[in-house]
Amino acid sequence: MNTKTYQELLNRQKEIQLLGSMQGLLEWDQRTYMPQAGAEHRAEQTALIAGVIHQKRTAPPIDKLLHELEVDREPDDSPEAVNIREWRRDYDKQTKLSRELVEELTRTSVLSQQTWQQARADKDFSLFQPWLEKTLDLKRREAEAYGYTDDIYDPLLDTYEPGVKAVEVGKVLGELREALVPLMKSIAASGRKRDSSILHRDYPPAAQSAFVHKVAASIGYDFNAGRIDETVHPFCIGLGPGDVRITTRYIPDFLNSALFGIIHEAGHGLYEQNLPREHWGTPMGEAVSLGIHESQSRLWENLVGRSRAFWEFWYPTAQDHFQSLQNVPLDDFYLAINAVQPSLIRVEADEVTYNLHILLRFELERELLTGRLAVADLPPAWNAKFFDYFGLEVPDDSLGCLQDIHWSAGLFGYFPTYSLGNLNAAQLYAAAEGELGGLPAMFRRGEFQPLLGWLQRNVHQHGRRYNSAELIQRATGKPLSADAAVRYLEGKYGGRQVV
Amino acid sequence: MNTKTYQELLNRQKEIQLLGSMQGLLEWDQRTYMPQAGAEHRAEQTALIAGVIHQKRTAPPIDKLLHELEVDREPDDSPEAVNIREWRRDYDKQTKLSRELVEELTRTSVLSQQTWQQARADKDFSLFQPWLEKTLDLKRREAEAYGYTDDIYDPLLDTYEPGVKAVEVGKVLGELREALVPLMKSIAASGRKRDSSILHRDYPPAAQSAFVHKVAASIGYDFNAGRIDETVHPFCIGLGPGDVRITTRYIPDFLNSALFGIIHEAGHGLYEQNLPREHWGTPMGEAVSLGIHESQSRLWENLVGRSRAFWEFWYPTAQDHFQSLQNVPLDDFYLAINAVQPSLIRVEADEVTYNLHILLRFELERELLTGRLAVADLPPAWNAKFFDYFGLEVPDDSLGCLQDIHWSAGLFGYFPTYSLGNLNAAQLYAAAEGELGGLPAMFRRGEFQPLLGWLQRNVHQHGRRYNSAELIQRATGKPLSADAAVRYLEGKYGGRQVV
Repeated sequence: MNTKTYQELLNRQKEIQLLGSMQGLLEWDQRTYMPQAGAEHRAEQTALIAGVIHQKRTAPPIDKLLHELEVDREPDDSPEAVNIREWRRDYDKQTKLSRELVEELTRTSVLSQQTWQQARADKDFSLFQPWLEKTLDLKRREAEAYGYTDDIYDPLLDTYEPGVKAVEVGKVLGELREALVPLMKSIAASGRKRDSSILHRDYPPAAQSAFVHKVAASIGYDFNAGRIDETVHPFCIGLGPGDVRITTRYIPDFLNSALFGIIHEAGHGLYEQNLPREHWGTPMGEAVSLGIHESQSRLWENLVGRSRAFWEFWYPTAQDHFQSLQNVPLDDFYLAINAVQPSLIRVEADEVTYNLHILLRFELERELLTGRLAVADLPPAWNAKFFDYFGLEVPDDSLGCLQDIHWSAGLFGYFPTYSLGNLNAAQLYAAAEGELGGLPAMFRRGEFQPLLGWLQRNVHQHGRRYNSAELIQRATGKPLSADAAVRYLEGKYGGRQVV
Repeated sequence: MNTKTYQELLNRQKEIQLLGSMQGLLEWDQRTYMPQAGAEHRAEQTALIAGVIHQKRTAPPIDKLLHELEVDREPDDSPEAVNIREWRRDYDKQTKLSRELVEELTRTSVLSQQTWQQARADKDFSLFQPWLEKTLDLKRREAEAYGYTDDIYDPLLDTYEPGVKAVEVGKVLGELREALVPLMKSIAASGRKRDSSILHRDYPPAAQSAFVHKVAASIGYDFNAGRIDETVHPFCIGLGPGDVRITTRYIPDFLNSALFGIIHEAGHGLYEQNLPREHWGTPMGEAVSLGIHESQSRLWENLVGRSRAFWEFWYPTAQDHFQSLQNVPLDDFYLAINAVQPSLIRVEADEVTYNLHILLRFELERELLTGRLAVADLPPAWNAKFFDYFGLEVPDDSLGCLQDIHWSAGLFGYFPTYSLGNLNAAQLYAAAEGELGGLPAMFRRGEFQPLLGWLQRNVHQHGRRYNSAELIQRATGKPLSADAAVRYLEGKYGGRQVV
């Protein structure tokens, strides 16, 4: 390989990533602290930097440099070869979009999110409707520009989960549904105690904050290189090496939101904080896909954070922090945090019903994209489908189709990666347990480093060396399937008592 | 004028300002919320964007476009002519610096500030010393690149206060000193009550925050387009139209820091928030100079915020917020906030001694720049001069030469603008009172809009239309002098009792 050529390309790519990390800060600030009146200017800033980045990513010299390296190189999985392969993929994808479209998508996304926040607060879908229509027009233009064979959803999904098709997602979500609906029914029929009212007592935000900081630190999230802020919609963002931030919201009379929200976001944060620092700015220093990213958050949130062993260690500390738990036995708390029950809000859903929330969004966003469903008809369509899947009436749109930020931010094709994350998480956890043995015993002692170490070795350190299918195959010894997830859920919630 | 040419130049300049506003956000974040471990990456980001901006500001097409417009235009004070004039000034100045030097200055500034924070916390000058040495080397290179006739300090000062020379600053600071030293002595000799211990009682940060938010809003600072965050060193930053942020620090047993700090920063904020929005991104939408900027903050902080009339309105509300003031008569409070007394910290100094703090820094930074004073000798030199001017021993460097952020951020030539601000403030206030009449009576009723309106008409709306000397001449009817400041201070603190 020509080292000089590689270095020249590397410098260009690192500059692009540096600019990307500034775009990240604009986004973080927009969602945390930006004053209301700054939105219009922020849209201009974000559009400009997206345009500059797009121009640099699609600059013809990149093609030329890549071509020289491709002719020259031995195919292997060395960092250099991986970077060249992935840079080529990104270049070919990016060059299909015009700078004008990229800027327009970005500008619209900022203003649309701002309106969505207002619409959600006011429970008024009509405010948001024109922005969603505009966003959909732009996303269709984006999908057409990428091109596709038979499904306009595919090229958008590919951005988040490279190589995966809508039809495959539909199939696996369908399989999950087949397994989970009977499980839901048997849980409902069992009449099993599922009182989660103790989670809705008084939980002062300051105490929540203190507690979740301790929990996040214990599983390995490094606060010297990160922080927690408050936002409407929780997220994790890697702004660069040494700077990976997470957010949450503290609801004074509901413990779960911040507690499991932070374990979830810290799971994302652990992935970002443990990507190989020496490769920052190149594909070797980046996460594989959103489905793999989500596996890290769901694994810590659910397979660890909702396990009995975890709470055998943490519950006494929780009781020290919260008066409301003083007289609640551990078993009751454990049942409460694992109560299975149809509910309105995706981010607060239990493990069993969660994937139905995804299926609903996946089906609706496909119909919106193809135009089979008009935007104006989204609220009734959402509510009807929601009743069909969950048997619940949606009281207002803030608890219905306005609850998630994604569509306002133009993130179509994003939701399915949450369910893929659940499947990946269950399969990775089973493999880690198979190799290490006795994870619950470790959790009971507050030892989370062995599991984190396994994830570092098998997932984090590889960056984009393997695609998601290869990574799962190598880490678990088999291709991805719903088996581990179904086995885990049936083992935990089926037949026997949950504790 | 060729409208097409102007538009082309305007688009380029607005893009530069948009990028500049991103650099602003990087800086704001660095000083508020950035995790410690993110500093190195932030230095890379900041250096890159400074380099990109520098490249765009010095791009040869700008020279060509300016030249076309200059040949063509009628000299007048229309926005277009002002912009062309100021763009030319900026272009000629910027092109003297290499991109490499600009990036190195920026990168060094970020890392040096980070080290300064640590050094200040640890009271350990030796940590900071190598960074200050490096910074001085770079600033000397910068000054040489700009060029100067006889004083290396001049080109650096010119960045903050266009057209003003070090020798002029030395002269005016000397004059002030001549007037203020006798005033200090007569105050000390009068044995007048100057008990400020009531300001060092218990002032819970939450109550301070609530109170200063109310005060800032009342003088016109728009929280829909701004916010207050906490930082080690308070500042105001305009991130764009609709987004002007200020910061402070809440000291639990000292009221002044946040109270007068916020009135001060809100004064800056009012200037930024009231610059003509339609001219954002061009010189017509920018502040004239730091000396004019500082006039706005000092005017609100001192001439308004430390006046008796202001507190006749605000004191009952302050008593509602602070248990510690419950039994303190207004007169005692007023005396306390106006106590004149030599003290260690510049930002907490009274109006009379403040300018001596500036004189000390001005003298030392000139010696550092020329190399007559070695960096290693700064702490003893500071302490000796401090004892000479104030009669006080400096207990440690965090209360001495490490107290201010400026030198760590490469801001040499910046300090004198604070004193120029004091002179401008006194002269502007006297002119406003002359025109409006009865300002104190308005303050007593909580009416601050008339004064703000006068400042909007005479200062804010003009952007960089006039330079600081012209602006002061037009607004006050005479050239800048120390007269108004001396008259104000002697009137308030001389002869009669302060109340």
